[in-house]
Amino acid sequence: LKYFEPMEHGGDVLSYKNLYDGEIIDFSSNINPLGPPARLKEYLSKSFDEVEKYPDIKYRILRENIGEYLNCEKENVVVGNGAVEIINNFIFLFKRVIIFSPAFSEYEKRAKIFNKDILKLSFSKDYRLDIDAIKTSIKEGDILVLGNPNNPTGLRIEKQELLDIYEIVLDKKAFLLLDEAFFEFCPFDYDSIDIFKKYGYERVAIIRAATKFFALPGIRFGYACTSTDMVEKCNSIGLPWSINIFADYAGRYIFRCQEYIEDSKAYIDEERRFLLEGLSQIEGIRVFPTQSNFIFIKLLKWDEDFVFDKFLKNGLLIRKCSSFFEDLDKSYIRVAIKDRNSNTKLLNSFKELESV
Amino acid sequence: LKYFEPMEHGGDVLSYKNLYDGEIIDFSSNINPLGPPARLKEYLSKSFDEVEKYPDIKYRILRENIGEYLNCEKENVVVGNGAVEIINNFIFLFKRVIIFSPAFSEYEKRAKIFNKDILKLSFSKDYRLDIDAIKTSIKEGDILVLGNPNNPTGLRIEKQELLDIYEIVLDKKAFLLLDEAFFEFCPFDYDSIDIFKKYGYERVAIIRAATKFFALPGIRFGYACTSTDMVEKCNSIGLPWSINIFADYAGRYIFRCQEYIEDSKAYIDEERRFLLEGLSQIEGIRVFPTQSNFIFIKLLKWDEDFVFDKFLKNGLLIRKCSSFFEDLDKSYIRVAIKDRNSNTKLLNSFKELESV
Repeated sequence: LKYFEPMEHGGDVLSYKNLYDGEIIDFSSNINPLGPPARLKEYLSKSFDEVEKYPDIKYRILRENIGEYLNCEKENVVVGNGAVEIINNFIFLFKRVIIFSPAFSEYEKRAKIFNKDILKLSFSKDYRLDIDAIKTSIKEGDILVLGNPNNPTGLRIEKQELLDIYEIVLDKKAFLLLDEAFFEFCPFDYDSIDIFKKYGYERVAIIRAATKFFALPGIRFGYACTSTDMVEKCNSIGLPWSINIFADYAGRYIFRCQEYIEDSKAYIDEERRFLLEGLSQIEGIRVFPTQSNFIFIKLLKWDEDFVFDKFLKNGLLIRKCSSFFEDLDKSYIRVAIKDRNSNTKLLNSFKELESV
Repeated sequence: LKYFEPMEHGGDVLSYKNLYDGEIIDFSSNINPLGPPARLKEYLSKSFDEVEKYPDIKYRILRENIGEYLNCEKENVVVGNGAVEIINNFIFLFKRVIIFSPAFSEYEKRAKIFNKDILKLSFSKDYRLDIDAIKTSIKEGDILVLGNPNNPTGLRIEKQELLDIYEIVLDKKAFLLLDEAFFEFCPFDYDSIDIFKKYGYERVAIIRAATKFFALPGIRFGYACTSTDMVEKCNSIGLPWSINIFADYAGRYIFRCQEYIEDSKAYIDEERRFLLEGLSQIEGIRVFPTQSNFIFIKLLKWDEDFVFDKFLKNGLLIRKCSSFFEDLDKSYIRVAIKDRNSNTKLLNSFKELESV
């Protein structure tokens, strides 16, 4: 029997609630601070009459809605119980998994569980991709998994880099899995789904999710755009009905909330500026640039445990990176961008830290 | 890249709705005809405020509720996105999978997807287990998967048979996975969860589900009782947060509905008698005995396609068995036990058939 250590994940406020007398502000999970779209709950209650039926095993209406939102055909859409199920299924389908480290822990975890060969490549000092390393090492049957933006580092792949990587992937008959779970938070640069449309999404899949941007981690709903061939493969190995009727209904609603989507982007943009500006004045930390709704920070004077405990005393839960990202030592933390009031509290806690 | 043909599943009324002008009665999926517990929907709406949080990754409250219902410790409980996710995870953990055929198609499908060795054993003519065949063939590292009651045949394993099988499994250091998704529908004979308690659920897991008995296929919620060791193993390979907040809340509610549970059992008991009595008078079919809420039928004069099409013209969707159960030819169908009005319509369709 194989056995794997469960890794910690963010958002586990429950495990810490006895350590602070009050409401903990969760900077460890990267959720849209505006919360879910208004009236979603009203719409969800319409699904109550369908709990006694199986969800549509082909998720026809849901995939049509996703296709409209993503501007791709519904035949190119796969859905999953959170982005993580889609990541799991794609990784399962290939022989070797190439990842950059640090990245979302589930890439490596799922690869290990399926006993895949794993090749870990290193980022440059600024956490940019090493395209030469990809070119040298990638081969037929590999799946290259890239966070775009990457978690926890926060940077998008540049458009020309992405095109170069795709050319390599096509040339080597490998596969490119782009995890774009944070896409909508980023200032618009390009849309991979548009870029790869003319290729029929050959050897590429782009994952998005409702979890982060639509603030719905309780719903478990991810989706991806890929070739019709890969859609079929994913469906043939995936569990039937992995999305329940509530997630199905949520997906039929959220993409139409145009105003909410625009407001959220503007809000994050402003708070990102505010928080980056404030953090730039804190001594004893190195703040990495980010296009995302989270900020990756190197602690120059303390370790993550010290800072974690100190912030928790102020009711702030931050992400210690060493237990989430295998190749990081104890000098890194990650914080989400939240509402102005919370962000101010975070900055104040950093200021307290300076005087330690 | 591996590729597997998606198999059909029941409950896919959508695919047939253009073939009948009216509401189709779905005899293909085996759901409690009383529908979900009253007031569940009211309770579910309380979960709306939690869509913006991750579900508890350890499902503490939910597992406590399940433990109380099953009369086992919460530490012995695993949860899954439908029983099928639990089946999937257990099968993944073993080298070889032993199944009897015909059985729920996902046992074999998941085993094939994970490239497991598969040993298929045959039932006796009356669809009883062949314990000698188990004893001769089972070895260390095997997982024996048994439906209890089995689907589509409908019979429970007798208590002494079960004890004999368990002794063999322990002796050979194998593992016994009991799929009891239909347990509550059966007249009470014994409770595996009580029987195996004194063994600490060593080398055994008992799967139950909300889908069938609590009429909640739209919710996707299964659970199982096993050793604490296996609970850890399942959690370490399973996807995080695979149960969303609605399924979590449903699970906190349904087990307390004592009256609903008793009423449902009595209702099915009565309708089972009614339908079996009626079917026994139909010529041209062989009706197998059942303890479940579904009935397995051999067609002596027609094939499944003919009967399927004929019944669909009357607005009744039945289960053709050959496409769901690999080793059955086209002479078998399965029908669910539903409400009196629907059951009467079913009997009338069978009577029409007699005159063909």
